[in-house]
Amino acid sequence: MKLRPVELAERHAPHLDAALKACATRAHWSPFKESPSSKVHGESRPAEGRARFEALLGQPFEIDQPGTIGTVGHEVSPYTRKPLGITYPKSDPDALFGAAREAMRSWIELSPEERAGVCFQMAFALEEQAFVNAHATMHTAGQAFLMAFSGSGANALDRGVEALAYAYKAMADVPRTAEWEKDFGRTGIVRLRKSYRLRPRGVAVVVCCATFPLWNAYPAVFANLMTGNAVILKPHPNGILPVAMAVKRMRETLAAAGQDPNLVLLAADEREAPITIELIKHSACAIIDYTGSQRFGTWIEENCPDRLVFTETAGCNAVVLESSDDLNAAIGGLANGLCGFSAQMCTSPQNVHIPHTGVRAGDTVLSFEDTATRIVDAILQRTDNPARAAALCAAVQADQSLDLIRSVRERALASGAEILLESRSYDHPDFPDARTATPLVVAVDADQIDLYGEEVFAPICFIIREHSSEEAVQNAARIAQQRGAISSYLYSADRSFIENAQDRFAEAGASLWVNMDDRMPINFAAAYSDYHVTGLNPAGNASLTDLAFVANRFRIVQFREPVPAETGK
Amino acid sequence: MKLRPVELAERHAPHLDAALKACATRAHWSPFKESPSSKVHGESRPAEGRARFEALLGQPFEIDQPGTIGTVGHEVSPYTRKPLGITYPKSDPDALFGAAREAMRSWIELSPEERAGVCFQMAFALEEQAFVNAHATMHTAGQAFLMAFSGSGANALDRGVEALAYAYKAMADVPRTAEWEKDFGRTGIVRLRKSYRLRPRGVAVVVCCATFPLWNAYPAVFANLMTGNAVILKPHPNGILPVAMAVKRMRETLAAAGQDPNLVLLAADEREAPITIELIKHSACAIIDYTGSQRFGTWIEENCPDRLVFTETAGCNAVVLESSDDLNAAIGGLANGLCGFSAQMCTSPQNVHIPHTGVRAGDTVLSFEDTATRIVDAILQRTDNPARAAALCAAVQADQSLDLIRSVRERALASGAEILLESRSYDHPDFPDARTATPLVVAVDADQIDLYGEEVFAPICFIIREHSSEEAVQNAARIAQQRGAISSYLYSADRSFIENAQDRFAEAGASLWVNMDDRMPINFAAAYSDYHVTGLNPAGNASLTDLAFVANRFRIVQFREPVPAETGK
Repeated sequence: MKLRPVELAERHAPHLDAALKACATRAHWSPFKESPSSKVHGESRPAEGRARFEALLGQPFEIDQPGTIGTVGHEVSPYTRKPLGITYPKSDPDALFGAAREAMRSWIELSPEERAGVCFQMAFALEEQAFVNAHATMHTAGQAFLMAFSGSGANALDRGVEALAYAYKAMADVPRTAEWEKDFGRTGIVRLRKSYRLRPRGVAVVVCCATFPLWNAYPAVFANLMTGNAVILKPHPNGILPVAMAVKRMRETLAAAGQDPNLVLLAADEREAPITIELIKHSACAIIDYTGSQRFGTWIEENCPDRLVFTETAGCNAVVLESSDDLNAAIGGLANGLCGFSAQMCTSPQNVHIPHTGVRAGDTVLSFEDTATRIVDAILQRTDNPARAAALCAAVQADQSLDLIRSVRERALASGAEILLESRSYDHPDFPDARTATPLVVAVDADQIDLYGEEVFAPICFIIREHSSEEAVQNAARIAQQRGAISSYLYSADRSFIENAQDRFAEAGASLWVNMDDRMPINFAAAYSDYHVTGLNPAGNASLTDLAFVANRFRIVQFREPVPAETGK
Repeated sequence: MKLRPVELAERHAPHLDAALKACATRAHWSPFKESPSSKVHGESRPAEGRARFEALLGQPFEIDQPGTIGTVGHEVSPYTRKPLGITYPKSDPDALFGAAREAMRSWIELSPEERAGVCFQMAFALEEQAFVNAHATMHTAGQAFLMAFSGSGANALDRGVEALAYAYKAMADVPRTAEWEKDFGRTGIVRLRKSYRLRPRGVAVVVCCATFPLWNAYPAVFANLMTGNAVILKPHPNGILPVAMAVKRMRETLAAAGQDPNLVLLAADEREAPITIELIKHSACAIIDYTGSQRFGTWIEENCPDRLVFTETAGCNAVVLESSDDLNAAIGGLANGLCGFSAQMCTSPQNVHIPHTGVRAGDTVLSFEDTATRIVDAILQRTDNPARAAALCAAVQADQSLDLIRSVRERALASGAEILLESRSYDHPDFPDARTATPLVVAVDADQIDLYGEEVFAPICFIIREHSSEEAVQNAARIAQQRGAISSYLYSADRSFIENAQDRFAEAGASLWVNMDDRMPINFAAAYSDYHVTGLNPAGNASLTDLAFVANRFRIVQFREPVPAETGK
């Protein structure tokens, strides 16, 4: 069954309109189902999703794409600690780039509306496999099922559609034709007919991260496809399956819409033989969308000046605890953030700055020590019960995070810092072999910045004793500016303190979430509403999304010609 | 007399609306006077402008700005070959950047509308000095008076206001506040109040070129100021005066509007002690807007990856002559382009590709040789009369261009190419010592690409014998793609030939002007209508202007906070 792009454009026009409206109002909107509940999807879907996932294990992943020169694939599940046993095509980069460039030739003949129609069709096709992809994300990234369902499903697709809408908006800003006339005095009025043709930059390489394989990938993929660029997705060596499934589904949709499936290609690799640099340095790579470590992100920013580079890396996210009218809700929200997915999110808090004089809570003041104890208690409350810990902390993606916990603990002890809460492995009720770790909580003085002054990608929380609440803000903002931050947090019941802190964080180029309590995940980033990375600190440069994320992915070529004088036409 | 920004916003709101409309329709519009005619300006203005210019000669240029540590200035007029004798402050870069950063603090408190009001006020204040600035541009760049009047006046201000409008549009795309609510199931509906604050990147360095000191500078200046960034202008060592006058006038307007004048600063240097690299590599430089040679532009693109870089450099602009229904008008237009300002424009044609079988003109075919002769005759017609030559060719900005003519001539002769027309100095009627040169015309074979295959910044035209009209298009487009092109030209009466050529040039990332005849300057680039550099070939990356030119000059910092549940507000 062929889906004609013009029909897809018409079918999805209401979605495009709604997405554009959401971008403008920045209110909540989604055409996708965020919950995996059987009440929403029917009884059979969850089990069917699991079965589809299990059928993939121990098999070559079936995907037909050019340039296959072997196989790769050594993914290990953070839940079972066993290999998934799936192999993927190993691809010749030259063949991928060649096929991708060729595929762009016909794709750019479509109108932006038609490309939007095809991309929306892809998005809904991707949603269809949200259950199976949730299992794939669990067993590569280590996420809990609920998070994996939305984080590789509706929430990721929302950000993708948001980027689609921004790309459409930027292209719609360029008229396709114009008539221009000007009086040149002696020679009279000259009329020119002008036309403007949008051209893609070339092939984009989208480098995906280990812990959220698709949440950053979809915005990059749709921003690129919308503006006419083909995409090669390079998954993390332990996060291939969710990406491969997405690539396969997008290729199927493209083919069904009569388009060249090579607009979307997979380039998988292994830890022992990484290919990222070869891909992003390939002469045909025009755009790089990178998600991952700050170190490699900065390397790309500094070493690929002749490509368009978008990065989302990581930061040293701070919390300033000054006062609260509802300290229970505040500390509850904070503890959720410290435990959530074992702090393996780019928005996870790490450093909790508290004045040594304590925290005002309503009419009383809770001492620094008591506040720290309350945070520890809130973490214990969330991790003592294995079922609750499993839902909240999920699994740890990589052994390196466990190593980090050990090394931070040793360095903390060596420098006289106090361990307030040891990290431990909790017993996952469903996966006895799961790689798990509850948060390590360390109390430090503000001057021990060598301990807490950069991001530690592991469930580790530093509680920092500050000389004053003002210094807490200054220190947190300075670290955000120098080391990067994606989300910073402030708890205060004092309006003027909040406003001063906002000014200080704005100067530091860091966004600030104020008084986020336990009614929602404090670090939830909402499509159409929350701009992501500010680009003003070392945590990356890509907002996901704004006009700057899309406007330079295409360029304008112009023609002009006089309107013949005789007819005036 | 203080001008309040809010009043300026109101005063200039109709101009902003009209500019936004012009960007959308891409029709002709201008609030500025392009003609220096006394009928427009009154009898006294031209003489007054000349007197103001003459009063500047041989004096220190009076401009009060921070960090002055000496004087610089050794400009020589291309018309008189005598020093202007004007000195300018030599500035300490650290002091300039410090003052610029400080000035941004209050500037970013203004609304985009207020900043637009102040920028429009500047633009009209700059227009007021169009006469004196025309003389300043003549005697530094070598332009003829008419071109200097519009090219440093109305035409340049038009592009500046265009950039202002795009910057406004990009900022208007970001709402300032939003209310967001989402049902989090068990914990109920959470409402967040969000606010979005626009932040500038930092200080921009605008590097101006020798031949058009302000045409590229104004778009960069207004794009930067609108988005909250301060600007340091670095003029060419022989083009300081027009830039210094503009900086002074902008500083006066800022001060009159109660703003810190250090938002706009001059950093002049001398050929023997250039400071461009020191400025653009300064740790406080966040944005670089560069106009000048392709070599240095590419160096900046490759060596400043941690700054936002916009370049407009130069290309090897081609003409393909295939057929014409009015060959006189076509060759007339082409000859105007070859002679105009002695081909010292980034849009000047250089290489004329003609099939060896000749050019169809109506019912007959003109041979290759006869076509070349017609081009030579058209150039002679325009250069034999000194008054006409003076108005069209003006003066040559630098001795290096004369050296280039000599060296190209020698290399052409050495490789057996035929000199069809020698370059000569013509006698300027007003300035007997003027540095002048009529075009050198050289006939070459298509395979002599080492002669014509890169830009020669001098009045030199290569007439290239191609195997066929199709190969002419292929060769011209390939050079545009590999060596860069800002404007390419095609003359053809064959619609399908035109369309094929458009496709080929679009693939090469080059804009194409078709059948531009002698009724207007063929390389005129119209604000609000003609996108400039495509960014798809080595002639630079900055379109002047589109959303990509402005959207990344500011970033978004966000705050969010729950709406208290009690009141529902």
